[in-house]
Amino acid sequence: MNADLIIQAAHVLKMDSDFTVIENGAIAVKDGRIISVGTSEDVRKQYSSEKVIGGKDTVAFPGLVNTHTHSPMVLFRGLEDDLPLKIWLEEHIWPAENTWLSSEFVGDAVELACLEMLKAGITLVNDMYFFGDVIARTVKKFGMRAVVGAGILDFPSKTAHTPDEYLAQAEAFIRDWKGDDLITPALAPHAPYTCSPETMLKTRKISDRYMVPVHTHLSETQWESGEMKRRYGKTSVQLLEDLGVLDERFIAAHCVWLTDEEIDILARRRVGVSHCIESNLKLASGIAPVVKMLNAGVRVTFGTDGAASNNDLNILSEASTAAKVHKAVSGDPTALNARQAMLMATRWGAQALGLGDVTGSIEEGKAADIVLAGLRKPHLVPIYDIYSHLIYAMNAGDIDTVIINGKVVINRRELTTGDESEIMDRALVWEKKIRSSRAE
Amino acid sequence: MNADLIIQAAHVLKMDSDFTVIENGAIAVKDGRIISVGTSEDVRKQYSSEKVIGGKDTVAFPGLVNTHTHSPMVLFRGLEDDLPLKIWLEEHIWPAENTWLSSEFVGDAVELACLEMLKAGITLVNDMYFFGDVIARTVKKFGMRAVVGAGILDFPSKTAHTPDEYLAQAEAFIRDWKGDDLITPALAPHAPYTCSPETMLKTRKISDRYMVPVHTHLSETQWESGEMKRRYGKTSVQLLEDLGVLDERFIAAHCVWLTDEEIDILARRRVGVSHCIESNLKLASGIAPVVKMLNAGVRVTFGTDGAASNNDLNILSEASTAAKVHKAVSGDPTALNARQAMLMATRWGAQALGLGDVTGSIEEGKAADIVLAGLRKPHLVPIYDIYSHLIYAMNAGDIDTVIINGKVVINRRELTTGDESEIMDRALVWEKKIRSSRAE
Repeated sequence: MNADLIIQAAHVLKMDSDFTVIENGAIAVKDGRIISVGTSEDVRKQYSSEKVIGGKDTVAFPGLVNTHTHSPMVLFRGLEDDLPLKIWLEEHIWPAENTWLSSEFVGDAVELACLEMLKAGITLVNDMYFFGDVIARTVKKFGMRAVVGAGILDFPSKTAHTPDEYLAQAEAFIRDWKGDDLITPALAPHAPYTCSPETMLKTRKISDRYMVPVHTHLSETQWESGEMKRRYGKTSVQLLEDLGVLDERFIAAHCVWLTDEEIDILARRRVGVSHCIESNLKLASGIAPVVKMLNAGVRVTFGTDGAASNNDLNILSEASTAAKVHKAVSGDPTALNARQAMLMATRWGAQALGLGDVTGSIEEGKAADIVLAGLRKPHLVPIYDIYSHLIYAMNAGDIDTVIINGKVVINRRELTTGDESEIMDRALVWEKKIRSSRAE
Repeated sequence: MNADLIIQAAHVLKMDSDFTVIENGAIAVKDGRIISVGTSEDVRKQYSSEKVIGGKDTVAFPGLVNTHTHSPMVLFRGLEDDLPLKIWLEEHIWPAENTWLSSEFVGDAVELACLEMLKAGITLVNDMYFFGDVIARTVKKFGMRAVVGAGILDFPSKTAHTPDEYLAQAEAFIRDWKGDDLITPALAPHAPYTCSPETMLKTRKISDRYMVPVHTHLSETQWESGEMKRRYGKTSVQLLEDLGVLDERFIAAHCVWLTDEEIDILARRRVGVSHCIESNLKLASGIAPVVKMLNAGVRVTFGTDGAASNNDLNILSEASTAAKVHKAVSGDPTALNARQAMLMATRWGAQALGLGDVTGSIEEGKAADIVLAGLRKPHLVPIYDIYSHLIYAMNAGDIDTVIINGKVVINRRELTTGDESEIMDRALVWEKKIRSSRAE
């Protein structure tokens, strides 16, 4: 039988429920879907194709999933660092956003963010920002998969004035994009301390009507815990539980300051958690109780957060940092092992975003969202365990080829769906403007 | 005037005491030394050369210093992971060393380690292992700079049977290599729990005689603290202090489980500390009190530890992880800022190894140990602060060119002093042998 594309690799990590690794494997792709995965011998007996990629020093794994970011903030990468969160946010990031936010800014920024993420093997991203329509169009243009959350706040910003105006925009955005093959529209109420219970309930209603995800920041800082108790006499998670808005369509970023009871609630409600370890460390927000969450059965996934606070969009690095930090914090060197970290970075990420049937593993019937990385590098030999290599030794720069929906979007480190040089040049023009306005 | 080499860069980080950054800078090199550093305009007015490298999208910074590793263990990279230290060491690493250690193994392994380190911008490494002569010859062949510590133990190994035999071998090794332009011979008593006070004192005597560094593991695990108290009624640092062996020629790896008094001792004695954050995290050894050490005036530097426990030899990554983790652990987002992290990775590293006059910064008179990295990459634009970029966004893979003693050893990511492909092939032969012996 004829396939559109055959991918060969020394190691194919299916990331299925058995953690199957096929040595000398191959994957046949047709109409954007995986139609066969097995040993190269078996697959090549059944399928042929004019297009065969990969090879003997290659590992193939499912596209990585970034479950929390603000893509447009990539243009503020490193604008200010090593500052307390309050000063960083209130004196630098918010004023910068207030000055520069526009559909042009967001469009150019998201192009750069997509380019960076694709080159780092990220095939699916969960974004939260404003100008959702611009973000969705840009991501789609690059052939990338995204859940795009329309930002909702109780206070005015450049895009809306009242919570109801944000909600109306969000609903219109959902109607426009619902059913798209690459973009899942979603609702993104910023946080329980910036969105009232009323706003959260209205958000939930829209989510129920259209069956779309709800994406929020939750329990990021110790300040939030204190503030929520002061306002409502309960923590953020308890408040949302009492409102009845938590379920498996809910994805919560950060979840740093959790009590054991809150962890139980997140597990029981099957809430997806986006663990943003590098952002949490760098802003000194704290270290989320990930081992406890995993033991309680919470589906923990990885997010980069925005590049302004990280400073890159690199899920392999998040997984590596998390796998190491949680061993030391828990005092247990067997905690969060390499295989578990890869699961969190792939299949669980897709499941947390409601796309577990579509992507997240290399299995027949799923979309061909596949990453190929070269293994013939000084820091990647010798090789005794492929999971260990991916989590503890590989860098984003080792990723050669990225395939989404069967389409090669990164080919030998080159973007096929846009002009890298133009994208970087446009980012540098924004840099100049932002720099000069700050120098005034 | 004629120079052997002129390096141009958009940003030259001198890493001098003023943290000078020269925009549109240039460096003139003659006879292996830096003879001029300044703006490109000024340098090019005074010096010309047939060889001009670097360019407008480039950053130049001093070679990175890896202050603690066991280079030959690179052939055990990822042999076993996610295990408790005792099982990992006693059931996997020690048996593997016992089976495979030989001068051939060490030679092939160190070639791979040098290749990996050079490509990661490391120009100076502080090594601790056996077969020092093989290590020194291999490192020198690659044009790399190293402090090579001759391993000393109280118990027999493949290389010696008694402490005095190790010490005699170490002294002979020092005599052979003392005065070499790239290699500094040193003494490496393994740890205070594997070397008796008597062995430590004998080591000290040889160090005094030849004025060479002493490199040891110190206070790595909580077990060590308990064991030392049981044996000697005091901690490792207090024991060494009472023996009178601590001074600025002493470099101590790990230093995780320190009391405030021990931190004061390390500061007062000007002991160099090699902080191995990724190894300490991954083995769940604990998190060293780095912020406290820095506040007390301890010269803290970065080490990778062996690749078997890390799993790579990448100082930029160590610096990045440390800069982030210590913010969260101390609850202070201003702790260990990007500039401080670069200082620890360069000038302080060289100083801790007694080579502060030779290397560690880009200043006139110092050896030309310089790294160039390309900045025109999606994850490195825009750019507001160059230190922030190096620590929070750059990867080892962004390093293009590495110069040691004025010689280009990595040229556009290619090794000039050896055959990369042959080195990797030899590593893969060892992998096959090691794998098959374990399968038996």
